Amino acid sequence: MEDYHKPDQQTVQALRNIASRLRINSIKATTAAGSGHPTSCCSVAEIMSVLYFHSMKFRPEDPRNFNNDRFILSKGHAAPAMYSMWAETGYLKESELLSLCQVDSTLEGHPTPVSVPKQQFVDVATGSLGQGLGVACGMAYTGKYFDKASYSVYCLMGDGELSEGAVWEAMSFASHYQLDNLVAIMDINRLGQTDPAPLQHHLEKYQKRCEAFGWHAIIVDGHSVEELCKALSQPRHQPTAILAKTIKGKGIPAAEDKLGWHAKPLPKDMAEVVMKDLQSRIVNSSKRLYPAVPIEDAPPVSLRNIRMPSAPSYKPGEKISTRKAYGMALAKLGRYNERVVALDGDTNNLTYSEIFKNEHPNRFVECYIAQQNMVSVAMGCAARERNVVFASTLASFFTRAYDQLRMAAISESNIVLCGSHCGLSIGEDGPSQMGLEDMAMFRAIPTATIFYPSDGVATEKAVELAANTKGVCYIRTSRPENAIIYNSNEDFHVGQAKVVCQSKEDQVTVVAAGVTLHEALAAAEQLKKERIFMRVIDPFTVKPLDAKTIIDHARTTRGRIITVEDHYYEGGLGEAVCSAVVNESGFSLHRLAVSHVPRSGKPHELLKIYGIDRDAIAQAVRKMLSNSANAK
Amino acid sequence: MEDYHKPDQQTVQALRNIASRLRINSIKATTAAGSGHPTSCCSVAEIMSVLYFHSMKFRPEDPRNFNNDRFILSKGHAAPAMYSMWAETGYLKESELLSLCQVDSTLEGHPTPVSVPKQQFVDVATGSLGQGLGVACGMAYTGKYFDKASYSVYCLMGDGELSEGAVWEAMSFASHYQLDNLVAIMDINRLGQTDPAPLQHHLEKYQKRCEAFGWHAIIVDGHSVEELCKALSQPRHQPTAILAKTIKGKGIPAAEDKLGWHAKPLPKDMAEVVMKDLQSRIVNSSKRLYPAVPIEDAPPVSLRNIRMPSAPSYKPGEKISTRKAYGMALAKLGRYNERVVALDGDTNNLTYSEIFKNEHPNRFVECYIAQQNMVSVAMGCAARERNVVFASTLASFFTRAYDQLRMAAISESNIVLCGSHCGLSIGEDGPSQMGLEDMAMFRAIPTATIFYPSDGVATEKAVELAANTKGVCYIRTSRPENAIIYNSNEDFHVGQAKVVCQSKEDQVTVVAAGVTLHEALAAAEQLKKERIFMRVIDPFTVKPLDAKTIIDHARTTRGRIITVEDHYYEGGLGEAVCSAVVNESGFSLHRLAVSHVPRSGKPHELLKIYGIDRDAIAQAVRKMLSNSANAK
Repeated sequence: MEDYHKPDQQTVQALRNIASRLRINSIKATTAAGSGHPTSCCSVAEIMSVLYFHSMKFRPEDPRNFNNDRFILSKGHAAPAMYSMWAETGYLKESELLSLCQVDSTLEGHPTPVSVPKQQFVDVATGSLGQGLGVACGMAYTGKYFDKASYSVYCLMGDGELSEGAVWEAMSFASHYQLDNLVAIMDINRLGQTDPAPLQHHLEKYQKRCEAFGWHAIIVDGHSVEELCKALSQPRHQPTAILAKTIKGKGIPAAEDKLGWHAKPLPKDMAEVVMKDLQSRIVNSSKRLYPAVPIEDAPPVSLRNIRMPSAPSYKPGEKISTRKAYGMALAKLGRYNERVVALDGDTNNLTYSEIFKNEHPNRFVECYIAQQNMVSVAMGCAARERNVVFASTLASFFTRAYDQLRMAAISESNIVLCGSHCGLSIGEDGPSQMGLEDMAMFRAIPTATIFYPSDGVATEKAVELAANTKGVCYIRTSRPENAIIYNSNEDFHVGQAKVVCQSKEDQVTVVAAGVTLHEALAAAEQLKKERIFMRVIDPFTVKPLDAKTIIDHARTTRGRIITVEDHYYEGGLGEAVCSAVVNESGFSLHRLAVSHVPRSGKPHELLKIYGIDRDAIAQAVRKMLSNSANAK
Repeated sequence: MEDYHKPDQQTVQALRNIASRLRINSIKATTAAGSGHPTSCCSVAEIMSVLYFHSMKFRPEDPRNFNNDRFILSKGHAAPAMYSMWAETGYLKESELLSLCQVDSTLEGHPTPVSVPKQQFVDVATGSLGQGLGVACGMAYTGKYFDKASYSVYCLMGDGELSEGAVWEAMSFASHYQLDNLVAIMDINRLGQTDPAPLQHHLEKYQKRCEAFGWHAIIVDGHSVEELCKALSQPRHQPTAILAKTIKGKGIPAAEDKLGWHAKPLPKDMAEVVMKDLQSRIVNSSKRLYPAVPIEDAPPVSLRNIRMPSAPSYKPGEKISTRKAYGMALAKLGRYNERVVALDGDTNNLTYSEIFKNEHPNRFVECYIAQQNMVSVAMGCAARERNVVFASTLASFFTRAYDQLRMAAISESNIVLCGSHCGLSIGEDGPSQMGLEDMAMFRAIPTATIFYPSDGVATEKAVELAANTKGVCYIRTSRPENAIIYNSNEDFHVGQAKVVCQSKEDQVTVVAAGVTLHEALAAAEQLKKERIFMRVIDPFTVKPLDAKTIIDHARTTRGRIITVEDHYYEGGLGEAVCSAVVNESGFSLHRLAVSHVPRSGKPHELLKIYGIDRDAIAQAVRKMLSNSANAK
């Protein structure tokens, strides 16, 4: 008795034919492009054929249908293999495959959704290895716990990428949350870019690792459609790994199982011979295969217009840290929008996402100390516009996930990240816990919006705006408590700075945010006694920066600007202002920032030592004024 | 018969006493500091006692002696536990422990070597979790294969950090290279910052994971000095994990095995009671323990004055990519300096470190596709000035290791990283493989020097200079082949730009590097025909930037500057120049860079589309000149 839907002989042959055509198409496309990875496509031919035409349930005419099974090609360099499948389904024309890598094609060298027109069958970009499974985890978590739907998530991985730690973060996550709707197919073709992968063809070692991480792991011959069909049809009670023993370059005799063929398109004459041979293996059959139809039980979701039901309720002068205000705002947003979900990496009592967790436990995902996977899970939860995702940890630890963040931009993912404990104002814990390069990091992400709120009201507004802003949103929060400075009905917009303190007599414009904004206000008070007046601007978003407001106001203070930031000099607020004003004539800019690795100490001591406190600001103002007096 | 050096009863009691004093000192110090993690120290008290006074061989008066066994406290938040051990050895005064976290103390909140005076017993900073084992791997690899010496490497880890993928990259590396001189002690105290770690007290699950990754794994009661002594004395034939079942907060009755006590110093009155109780457990003994003496068989090494034996041998006009020139230069440097070692992450035929590998196979370390671990291994190999380490992969993939790079700066590590395939000039493979944020990333590392060589000669000079420059050095190389523009005897220095093309009639100064420098030179040729002359400056190092040369020359071109870079707008060459010239009066700066996520295409097509090719430069020059003509 078989416990799976065993394919008949005609189906088996049809699946083999599809695999042969995949090989032909992959060779043809990469040879035409003069670029690509045909041997990496050939090892997955049967896997892809069985996945698309036997196992997965999806509507090929509607690749982004939210009831479809999901598929992520984590080994993104096998992109032509995926493109061939979409040609098989009829979604692409076979002739389109020849446009691979061309500058006007949607068929990129590695799968990317951002081409215009948008590539519908790519949920997230891949090509930086070891990231697909984390995204798949986010999709599977969403399917099981948020959508409570029938769709499954399939992730095809290479053996080379199994060396990436991010994979094992995802493996751990999947078993911890019993994602029985998740299947990883591992293409163990033995060979990497330059060397064999460390475990070579020792499938049993991979199996041991997968089992130790709580997965059901099945070893199959990856070129046997029968074995693949059987393994993929088994009932699943935990996440399942199909360990497919394959031959890299299978079907290309000269390249089979040989080093030196990675990322090498076949020369034209060689390609002709190989394709002819492959063509001869295709047995005509009357049977045409179609992907299975999905079960339509995922709920429709709208993520438009995620709003706060009421204005912030802080009182002027009340003291609260922006990190705590973040947690409160997020819990409030979640109260009125049930697809708002929150992730954290074992820091929820530091970032204050615990306030959300306590109020909405079913929509909080503990990702443990695995920030790379947390960002990937966030991307997976956000895919196909299923959820509005907020993920938080310490600002410093998002550096751990910079590659994932970079790929989130390429993926056009809409996710919100909140980094708490920015800067040296955290104090005693020392430099390893201080986020001092986070603005530089996020500014260099093309789709990023950077919120740097300076009080509870601004934080609540930032949370609401971030939920409605496309791309990668980053909210930078601070540990110290500071006074509320904005009225509850103050209106905030992305790219719109606030003038926090001004008079007709202002001589210098100071741009500051977070703790340094409060230091600037204190400096203004101090200087007032000396009859020196300064204007203080809160940028609210560092990217985009409100250059116009800054320039307009600085002009009224004779072009004198001082920037102050709890961040290294490079790439942060100061450089953003530099870039904005560099071509203004008659401007002078002085920057206060952190110039070298800080140490442990009390927050106020560190602000002073590293020259970004009220005294340093007041001194910089005085010096700038005396310089310009001397210049006259 | 015992197969280990079983401690006598007096020794056992003395080790217990040391553990009790560790608890007392940790509580005392953290309560005095009002900061720190006493409960995380208490779980490792017996482990630390046995490590320092039974297992490890080292000279306590000379913590950096290169024959000593190495110790890395990967769970850096237990820093006071380590400080207590150094008080036990007599290296620190017990009274010094009370200076924990004070701004003038060398005892930082997390272990950091950078305090002045330098903290001798901390090889690398820890505190960002999951990084210690990779560094330990680099030390153990060095001990076994480069030093061929007897010292062992011990790494103490927490269970929370075992969720970090970087740990499993290191686990895989250690077994692949059979590092039998490496011992990881895993402090399984069940509780993280906010939640229990996912595997709780299931020691057997940890054991399964360690074994699957090729380690010998021994479960012990982490509070039994006898069990610890026995486990740590076993002969080792592969990397060994001691899985220590412990109680977080052990010795603090109210906190034992309880959530909510992470990172919480005890209130003073509570501390008094607990310390009194702990004091009562100390049994007076005449036995004083001393650390075991190390075997002195590591070779002396000098890393000073690592020089090339001869000038570069390129001919002007010859074409070579800077990535290939990197590989050739590194092989050459290695020929004359036997402690030059190279690491790569399965990309050695892309970065061309394969040239080094082929010539010096015993000094090449294949780190596979695990960039985080590669950077950590590099730090480990470089520790205690044992090796000059070069690690290479694609520029884009160093984003994977940004947290490790950040910690390398805090650690004052001297390592050289080479990122090939920078920018969109790689062409067909698309955005996932393009390093477009690497300069932003490295500029925000306080100890970084960024070399961006533009031809083979400059690359060879960069390799030589990087080998002798402290801190994190980054060499940015490109895929396309370009002409040699420098003479072999050209002298290069860090922070010294080159004027590549100039005349008395120059009207605009263009600053460019790598492929865009060659585009600028082509634009200069083009414009000459229109009787427009431009000066071209090659910065050579982007950090530090030679502001003086740029400003001086730009002044002779009436302050007109154009920057061109194969990088996003934020944080790269253009912003560096912005920062340098912002206060120059009468300057105008125009920047050409990549404004959004690129796509696949041929390199020259992409340079054109994204506006950083010769035509775009020529057009920008013309526009700048016509603007300033109109302004007159």
